[in-house]
Amino acid sequence: MGERNLRVLMKRHPAGMVTEDDFTIESAPMPVPGAGEALVRNLFLSLDPYMRPRMDPVRSYVAPLVPGELMPGGTVGEVVESRADDLPKGTLIAGALGWQSHGIAKRAAVRVLDPAAGPPSSALGVLGMPGVTAHYGLLQLGKPQPGQTVVVSAASGAVGGVVGQISRIKGCRAVGIAGGERKCRYVVEELGFDACVDYRADDFAARLAAATPDGVDVLFENVGGPVMDAVLGRINDFARIALCGNISDYNRTEPYGLKGMRELLMHRVSMLAFIIADQRAYWPTALGDLSAWLKGGQLRYREDVADGLENAPAAFIRMLTGGNFGKQIVRITN
Amino acid sequence: MGERNLRVLMKRHPAGMVTEDDFTIESAPMPVPGAGEALVRNLFLSLDPYMRPRMDPVRSYVAPLVPGELMPGGTVGEVVESRADDLPKGTLIAGALGWQSHGIAKRAAVRVLDPAAGPPSSALGVLGMPGVTAHYGLLQLGKPQPGQTVVVSAASGAVGGVVGQISRIKGCRAVGIAGGERKCRYVVEELGFDACVDYRADDFAARLAAATPDGVDVLFENVGGPVMDAVLGRINDFARIALCGNISDYNRTEPYGLKGMRELLMHRVSMLAFIIADQRAYWPTALGDLSAWLKGGQLRYREDVADGLENAPAAFIRMLTGGNFGKQIVRITN
Repeated sequence: MGERNLRVLMKRHPAGMVTEDDFTIESAPMPVPGAGEALVRNLFLSLDPYMRPRMDPVRSYVAPLVPGELMPGGTVGEVVESRADDLPKGTLIAGALGWQSHGIAKRAAVRVLDPAAGPPSSALGVLGMPGVTAHYGLLQLGKPQPGQTVVVSAASGAVGGVVGQISRIKGCRAVGIAGGERKCRYVVEELGFDACVDYRADDFAARLAAATPDGVDVLFENVGGPVMDAVLGRINDFARIALCGNISDYNRTEPYGLKGMRELLMHRVSMLAFIIADQRAYWPTALGDLSAWLKGGQLRYREDVADGLENAPAAFIRMLTGGNFGKQIVRITN
Repeated sequence: MGERNLRVLMKRHPAGMVTEDDFTIESAPMPVPGAGEALVRNLFLSLDPYMRPRMDPVRSYVAPLVPGELMPGGTVGEVVESRADDLPKGTLIAGALGWQSHGIAKRAAVRVLDPAAGPPSSALGVLGMPGVTAHYGLLQLGKPQPGQTVVVSAASGAVGGVVGQISRIKGCRAVGIAGGERKCRYVVEELGFDACVDYRADDFAARLAAATPDGVDVLFENVGGPVMDAVLGRINDFARIALCGNISDYNRTEPYGLKGMRELLMHRVSMLAFIIADQRAYWPTALGDLSAWLKGGQLRYREDVADGLENAPAAFIRMLTGGNFGKQIVRITN
């Protein structure tokens, strides 16, 4: 445990594509826990696409970040000093302490982890927010029926990979969309999807059509943009779209214009946008299923680990452009 | 009753904007009813926006029209010759006999009208498909709560006018969008909306903001395009969109690109596309409410009547560009 707290701040609002110059790294005094609080040393930081719209100077889900503010984010850490009886020293917790090496936690704001449930970092992925997001969006909004076709974009990512695997567990045809042959191979061979289509391929539309011979009944949308329009060209009557993300727009100054309104209308599609932060009560249900499937070998995942908090901005930028391969986390070694 | 049946056919698929040259008017032999059938003289034809996508050579809700086919449409008519005991001569019926002066009907495919319920032509408007569409989309999909704000586009039209009036009955703030000051005045002064915004005004966005001080909780969308994007800029968290039509695109060769995906996502909006033809079982419920409200003076409507079937193509084109004022019908005098 160092004497200082390393913190990554948003220096300024990005203009379009986020750059490393939009961040500042500072060394701050170590925070001191008050009564009922614990000092946590963060072991892992989760990097997630939702962080990008938070950096824009317009309201997203919550008030925008202001320059000089700590970057927000999910973390896994260990209590190293405690003034809280319910968070004794040594407790492993998942929380939202942000892009910093240390933070202050109260019991009510964190999840105490069972080290036997899986590697600690899985609490940021398959057994955390991305896993619960996949479970809720697919099963509560997408409502796939056995034999139906589910398409998910960013299929090799933290959310997409779980969406496809749950689809298979539920007896559906799972079709992923990912960038590049290597990711597509992983999605099919390791995660067990029925097919995965490389959106960078020249004949993407033809490949998508071949992968969805019976059309698309459920679309779990993480990316948006022209790839989403291509999927709308395959959409079936009464299809459901779980609208989870719009990554393709996050670094654009002008939003993409979605052309498929006719498809939505003619096929009587329901498009349901959600964020998992609204669904706190749902977490136990989802985590129960996810941990059972993980133990049963029905759920696989992959992590892309960056080392050191000072490398978080570069890893974040890489993730937003699809350069990561698996759930992006930062191992905090500071 | 003439000796010939006047029929309006689609001559060819329109290229973008539909023109009168895309139609043919023919004089055909009078159809002869078979056993269990009746010959109906049509009194009124309904002209509705959904007819335009039916003319494109791609599948809409159903198979596209082929050149030479009778234009489809809702009709009100009178049985003039009967070989069906359940459709005696003189019976007034609403059906879907298309753009023709006469047609053949069976009891199971038509609605027998009660002449005391209202003027026969109201069965094509407030007491017909447009009224039921408004009722279903607003109440079953939009689910407005008292005190919430409902916005509806094409507010002076057959569907939009009913949407706003039901919103008021349900204790909501009703805000219409229409083209021109005259229509807007009608929507507020005659139909009783709280406000109506002219989408042709230079300061449309500012006027829309002023008319929706508490944002928008329910959007009943008939038009799409940039006007819809403007409304998305006012959308509230957890808003519902009943996606009923996309008139602004129907005569475009390239679809408009909807820019408001960020708004849909950030505000966790549900966008639910529907067509009322899927909801046959819902008609009695809706018609019960609508006729009660009509009798109670809570529901007003206006008709824009074109005279003579030969004028149907021109009236249809005029309606698609907002030239009508009220529910567009054709009085069949042939």
